[in-house]
Amino acid sequence: MFRSHTCGELRISDAGKQIILSGWVSKVRLMGSMAFVDIRDRYGITQLSFNEGYSKELLEKAAELGREYVIQAEGKVAERESKNAQLSTGDIEIIVTGLTVLNKSKTPPFTIENDTDGGDDIRMQYRYLDLRRDVVRANLELRHRMAQKVRNYLSEYNFMEVETPVLIKSTPEGARDFVVPSRMNPGQWYALPQSPQTFKQLLMVSGFDRYFQIVKCFRDEDLRADRQPEFTQVDCEMSFVEQEDILQQFEGLMKHLFATEKGLEFGDFPRMTYADAMRLYGSDKPDIRFGMPFVELKAPGNGVDLVSGKDFVVFDSVEAVIGICAKGAANYTRKQLDGLTEFVKRPQIGAKGLVWCRIEEDGTAKSSVDKFYDAEALQAWKHAFGAEPGDLILVLAGDIHKTRKQLNELRLLMGTELGLRSSDDFKPLWVLDFPLLEWDEESERFHAMHHPFTSPLPQDLHLMDTEPGAVRANAYDLVINGVEVGGGSIRIFDRALQAKMFDLLGFTPEQAQAQFGFLMNAFEYGAPPHGGIALGFDRLCSLFGGAETIRDFIAFPKNNSGRDVMIDAPSVLDSTQLKELGL
Amino acid sequence: MFRSHTCGELRISDAGKQIILSGWVSKVRLMGSMAFVDIRDRYGITQLSFNEGYSKELLEKAAELGREYVIQAEGKVAERESKNAQLSTGDIEIIVTGLTVLNKSKTPPFTIENDTDGGDDIRMQYRYLDLRRDVVRANLELRHRMAQKVRNYLSEYNFMEVETPVLIKSTPEGARDFVVPSRMNPGQWYALPQSPQTFKQLLMVSGFDRYFQIVKCFRDEDLRADRQPEFTQVDCEMSFVEQEDILQQFEGLMKHLFATEKGLEFGDFPRMTYADAMRLYGSDKPDIRFGMPFVELKAPGNGVDLVSGKDFVVFDSVEAVIGICAKGAANYTRKQLDGLTEFVKRPQIGAKGLVWCRIEEDGTAKSSVDKFYDAEALQAWKHAFGAEPGDLILVLAGDIHKTRKQLNELRLLMGTELGLRSSDDFKPLWVLDFPLLEWDEESERFHAMHHPFTSPLPQDLHLMDTEPGAVRANAYDLVINGVEVGGGSIRIFDRALQAKMFDLLGFTPEQAQAQFGFLMNAFEYGAPPHGGIALGFDRLCSLFGGAETIRDFIAFPKNNSGRDVMIDAPSVLDSTQLKELGL
Repeated sequence: MFRSHTCGELRISDAGKQIILSGWVSKVRLMGSMAFVDIRDRYGITQLSFNEGYSKELLEKAAELGREYVIQAEGKVAERESKNAQLSTGDIEIIVTGLTVLNKSKTPPFTIENDTDGGDDIRMQYRYLDLRRDVVRANLELRHRMAQKVRNYLSEYNFMEVETPVLIKSTPEGARDFVVPSRMNPGQWYALPQSPQTFKQLLMVSGFDRYFQIVKCFRDEDLRADRQPEFTQVDCEMSFVEQEDILQQFEGLMKHLFATEKGLEFGDFPRMTYADAMRLYGSDKPDIRFGMPFVELKAPGNGVDLVSGKDFVVFDSVEAVIGICAKGAANYTRKQLDGLTEFVKRPQIGAKGLVWCRIEEDGTAKSSVDKFYDAEALQAWKHAFGAEPGDLILVLAGDIHKTRKQLNELRLLMGTELGLRSSDDFKPLWVLDFPLLEWDEESERFHAMHHPFTSPLPQDLHLMDTEPGAVRANAYDLVINGVEVGGGSIRIFDRALQAKMFDLLGFTPEQAQAQFGFLMNAFEYGAPPHGGIALGFDRLCSLFGGAETIRDFIAFPKNNSGRDVMIDAPSVLDSTQLKELGL
Repeated sequence: MFRSHTCGELRISDAGKQIILSGWVSKVRLMGSMAFVDIRDRYGITQLSFNEGYSKELLEKAAELGREYVIQAEGKVAERESKNAQLSTGDIEIIVTGLTVLNKSKTPPFTIENDTDGGDDIRMQYRYLDLRRDVVRANLELRHRMAQKVRNYLSEYNFMEVETPVLIKSTPEGARDFVVPSRMNPGQWYALPQSPQTFKQLLMVSGFDRYFQIVKCFRDEDLRADRQPEFTQVDCEMSFVEQEDILQQFEGLMKHLFATEKGLEFGDFPRMTYADAMRLYGSDKPDIRFGMPFVELKAPGNGVDLVSGKDFVVFDSVEAVIGICAKGAANYTRKQLDGLTEFVKRPQIGAKGLVWCRIEEDGTAKSSVDKFYDAEALQAWKHAFGAEPGDLILVLAGDIHKTRKQLNELRLLMGTELGLRSSDDFKPLWVLDFPLLEWDEESERFHAMHHPFTSPLPQDLHLMDTEPGAVRANAYDLVINGVEVGGGSIRIFDRALQAKMFDLLGFTPEQAQAQFGFLMNAFEYGAPPHGGIALGFDRLCSLFGGAETIRDFIAFPKNNSGRDVMIDAPSVLDSTQLKELGL
């Protein structure tokens, strides 16, 4: 037996017991005739006590211990003289009567503490040591709890977990597939699923009624920051439901997670249309932890224009002039304002410039465009923004779509700078009524905004032939703190409508049949109305963990080149392997 | 709202309620002025009642319904005149006041009933309809429950679920890998994991202490019957454990599953060494639902010889003569005995012939080798087998290893023929002390019997240099009813021993470092003693479901050529896809 207890388990009530502990040497303090060794495992830390008076031999053995050695200690639980209230085992120590070194350790390449001196690269290379740090393990413990809670909650609501296959068929629509050559079927390839979409829909045709799965999905994309080639989804589908049923069900799941994991209670999640989200926040995933909504000083079709005709050519010539009001930011220095201008002019954001207007204590306005806008004009701005003394108005101009995107970035920056985006604050939001289709200039055809299986809103169905670009989808996203946590839709369940959709997306009937024939055929054998949702599980965990990056919530993540630097994958194959595959 | 209740929910206590049901038309009975329609969903079947008296229009609509149409029915719950005790909803019916056809259905290519007329091929092609059959769905419901029970049980015992990566590195040791070309790292490939073995060991080095995962694994093998290229494991690992700790823990899990799923209670699972299993049953996974152990009439080193020196050249010349005693099978006819002989002479089994000896009612023996063995000799056989009047002794001869394998097949056949292998009877068994290494004649080197990370039994460690083939592994298999449900081992956690193991397996130090350097390096930073187990989840579910084949417990299985005939995968890739991959 390696241990009778864990290193986090013993209390003052255990005093006098003979016990055995196993774990890692966390700290050694040698004090002449005495020594203290902290022994650590996943469950906690316990102090081992050595004393020349008890055993000189053991004291000498303790003196030879190094950090991260794996040891087994036998001894008696005793009350400590100087207690440590920080530690759950801090009232006791172990008077050691036997000590075995189970394994030695070289000096780790970085310190195994919450504040480590290891950089990203070295920690990834030695990920197994990085995972030994409490903070990292705590992230994965959170992930473990979240997974169990999600499954138990959904199981209670009659969702059935069904494993869908990983070796499936490549479908060029959407992102790029990872593919797998088939040795038994030479010249043919499997693909790894980007999502189990078609399979879960088939399960609805099968009458499974409610399906879920926490499942790995794969996308061969050029990795932007914080994307992983393999990622995990909570994937769900329900039959005989409308949008409202799904929102209720998964709002319930989220409330359950917030309540049990964070002790937070929520009322109904607010809802916002895609159109409003774009108009008010310039984003389909607005962070509503703070207000600072967009105000349009000029925009097509809104009937307002507080900027034109003042000889300011920039504002005269553009489609839209939109701003935000940063509460209490009038004290921004010239340097800070220049910093904001530089921020929006960065190529990634691409604005031409930034106009500011600050509201002084006396209510007057001072702006960077005083030359063109007099006090009265600026008071009209102030009124439009509902600005008060001490506020700072920031205004961008240009093409409406680009300006909204740019102003979204500026708003988020201001939210951060003003401390309005605490990771302890959670503000969920449903975004609804997305467009069904997006026009792609490059390929000169429509793309599905969600995916080709999403149904149009019933009230927009009549526009499918005449004005497909105006059709709204029966789709919904769950957004928390500006992060898209999940999304889904009510699906098409009618063969004719599905064929029409493929047609709009530029598929010939033959292509549609070749790729998705099995699904369209299935729709002819009694497909029920159905819909679903998929939640990004890595993202959900990082959000609950209060972290920015999903990488800290994945045990063995890949870097931005898709490499696992620890095991050094991908790697070159044996020539015999390639030969067997006919490659 | 599509429904107020499911089709399995309404009871006599609901009589009078206005309700809405949605589901599939299971049966339509037209009876002139009345019609009855059974509406079905995952939860049950409810009878819809139509009557000319209530509504002629609705009756006409009902008459047009076809099998598997998806309908929505509104109406009032009423007590039935002729109740159906077979059905949980059999006391009531719905007096329909509104009927909507949500989707029509073509006539399915086979009948959607438990006893279907569909062959294997057509059912696989239309798997989504096959899954609509109650028996198939019940299998997947069982699988769902099993998964939740396993996870909840292990979570309660402090096991942490950790997702290990799917895109990993190819390691030619063991079975063939499925591989994935990396677009971002041209010329390099990922492999899909055959198991998360090295990752779970690294998690132990990380101090995760107890890990589990229900995880997809992949093997590119030529598919024998009932093998799938992707399969699911319950994968577990524990730190600071000895073999006994792991057996206890997972015996506990199995007892929990048997108790909650089957209502069966078990005492301690019996244990058997590999050597005994081979000697007594000729198999490392003996089916101990029945006895019929091997009796050696002659075998190397057992000091017994009841066959030589009687001028029967066959028995004189061979290494081993081994038999079984089939209780009560003395009534086998000549034709049946010939059938058994044919069975063992089939090329897959490969015996040269079969000797039988039946014990007559008066205790005398009658054998197929009476020419050589007189009454006294046969009485000695009878005594050796503990045979009684009415029993049938069956004897094979040859090389000891081959004879054992052959006799194993014969024993299993006799068990089946004598009705001793009921699928309701569960007989778990631990098989212990496997050999560490197997000599492979073809490659002229040792192979790891379990895998290269398995440790030797401590008491055999001294043989590693002198007689590696005699070293027993600290490994264990869980066998139920002759099926290997899982296996595991206590792992090597010492760099030097791991290097030695790779050396014995024919790796150069450079090869070992290139492929498993990350693991051997990790062993230098405080690796704890650890061990684990993996259970074949598909197999476990099929065993609990009382079925022979795992395919019925996988939602979307592949056929013996590794094809998914429903979605038609694998398939030919787009040339642009191949180009992007540099292939």
